Amino acid sequence: MNYILKNENALFYECGYSCDNALFLKLENEAFFITDARYVFEAKEFVKNAQVVLAQDLFAKARELLTNNAIKKISFDLKDFTCFDFKELSKDSTIEFEEKLDLSKNKRIIKTAQELEILQKSVNFGKECFDEFAKFISKEGHGKSEKELWFKACEIFQKKGKLGLSFSPIVAINENAAKAHALPSEKKLEFGDLLLVDAGVVYQRYCSDRTRTACFDENGIIFDKDKPNFKDKEIAQIYEVVKQAQLKAIEKARVGMKASELDFIAREVIKNAGFEKEFIHSLGHGVGLDIHELPNISPRSNLELKEGMVFTIEPGIYIQDKLGIRIEDMVYLTKEKAVVL
Amino acid sequence: MNYILKNENALFYECGYSCDNALFLKLENEAFFITDARYVFEAKEFVKNAQVVLAQDLFAKARELLTNNAIKKISFDLKDFTCFDFKELSKDSTIEFEEKLDLSKNKRIIKTAQELEILQKSVNFGKECFDEFAKFISKEGHGKSEKELWFKACEIFQKKGKLGLSFSPIVAINENAAKAHALPSEKKLEFGDLLLVDAGVVYQRYCSDRTRTACFDENGIIFDKDKPNFKDKEIAQIYEVVKQAQLKAIEKARVGMKASELDFIAREVIKNAGFEKEFIHSLGHGVGLDIHELPNISPRSNLELKEGMVFTIEPGIYIQDKLGIRIEDMVYLTKEKAVVL
Repeated sequence: MNYILKNENALFYECGYSCDNALFLKLENEAFFITDARYVFEAKEFVKNAQVVLAQDLFAKARELLTNNAIKKISFDLKDFTCFDFKELSKDSTIEFEEKLDLSKNKRIIKTAQELEILQKSVNFGKECFDEFAKFISKEGHGKSEKELWFKACEIFQKKGKLGLSFSPIVAINENAAKAHALPSEKKLEFGDLLLVDAGVVYQRYCSDRTRTACFDENGIIFDKDKPNFKDKEIAQIYEVVKQAQLKAIEKARVGMKASELDFIAREVIKNAGFEKEFIHSLGHGVGLDIHELPNISPRSNLELKEGMVFTIEPGIYIQDKLGIRIEDMVYLTKEKAVVL
Repeated sequence: MNYILKNENALFYECGYSCDNALFLKLENEAFFITDARYVFEAKEFVKNAQVVLAQDLFAKARELLTNNAIKKISFDLKDFTCFDFKELSKDSTIEFEEKLDLSKNKRIIKTAQELEILQKSVNFGKECFDEFAKFISKEGHGKSEKELWFKACEIFQKKGKLGLSFSPIVAINENAAKAHALPSEKKLEFGDLLLVDAGVVYQRYCSDRTRTACFDENGIIFDKDKPNFKDKEIAQIYEVVKQAQLKAIEKARVGMKASELDFIAREVIKNAGFEKEFIHSLGHGVGLDIHELPNISPRSNLELKEGMVFTIEPGIYIQDKLGIRIEDMVYLTKEKAVVL
């Protein structure tokens, strides 16, 4: 299959290098990495398995290469190209452009042993950062605003530049945690507050992703899902529902199951506790080079779970103006079961 | 004109709020901000001049609103939507979708007095960060790697979370500066080295952008374009060429001129010094909510410069395996001339 890619992580997966203005063209016996003068030196140094081609107009160069190689048909991902890109790519062309949705993400859905190793390290670094963040909050968190805590999280999760952030951390207190993707505010952390932290790192370009929700008090906070430390009975009960939903999904995940079936298992636990409408998102998502990859673990995903997939399991309950509780771990699917990374 | 937008900064410009999964639909007498359950609480709090609409499938909701309002024609930016987005948006539709390239960026090309004020503050913060970074390098920079310096730049330019980074800073030593968008390496800073720093901040969502190139020695470094401090005569001469190109472009910029004419003015200075092929990029770009906005100050841009435009002037000379020199400032175009921000 001939195909063309533009997304940075898709490019990195193909040839070990990427930059923000490049195209990767894979033909039967050849591959081309097309980029501009700003990146061409680095590309020549790092690109594997492809010929680096310098171009001012990447799409014009791609059209030229397609013509010179007498290509009749080429696949592309509708999500990888803007309408503008595609117009440029297909200009004056008689080539058949075949739509392959999630072309690269589908290639990347089963992780290799090497990728798993890197992902495990990424997860381990993420855990370390959670522990370091808990120590900081326990010592100095009282009275700090979400914004201040958020910035400290950014610092810690980057480990002095050794790691990247897989996304902007979410640090949300009490009712702000009901906004599943809350922006940090000026709200200050007080004893007895609920704190939700959703954060991850990038290690060797692979992402980690984890969420913990716990109570902060005079003794500090621990990001251990078995020790949330809620004194308020109602909150403790809701937490337990989320936790049971997560544990059940982890326990029941199997090769051959549809993603929607796994989502359903967790959703049923939450529904039976009366919070169906408060679980407002999908159960999880694949993680790899992108923070959101395949499989989507959602009520609408018919995708079959397979050995070697890596995804999050992250049920949540969100009660507007009151609280949000989410527990998230990444799992790896083996032949037998899901293993928490 | 009816139009639909997806880009975050485009959305922010319209209604003062944005998130990474939303559509903005502007109809004759109404506007809609369509987003999902994760963002809807915040959207309702912050969105101005538009009705917030909750939807699981944003494009289905947009189609529904278009149908219910009997819309016949709607404009969109080819660059703002992926092929997938557009397929979803136009599904089963008889509406005419009118292509308006850079729809939002064209709306934003002339800055208001209020925007200028914020941009000036953003530039001022950026300058402060350059000074702080110079102090750090002068004191502790010797022997630090580009990666370490890069991370310190990230810290400084974020001012403990009060600012954002307008892009990942470029910190490049000697020959690494020849790569116009260099990744930080393990290369260590030694006395006598050339150091190129390209960095900016985001203040109230508006970007700043600046580049300085200077020599680091026993006395440290200053990021003042008049005091580059190069002892090597050849480097000092090349620096002077870049500086003269920049000063001439700043001096000659006028309302009514084509962007390509301004690019030409700087390019001629560099060409006359024998470095035409070593100036490998455009002279500048607009700056605002996006780090790259209109106008492009490039040899191919026929756009007419107008009062109220804000853009960079950043000529450079890049000699592979040897050095890269770039000097960049942001200017604001008044009726009479260009004013350096």
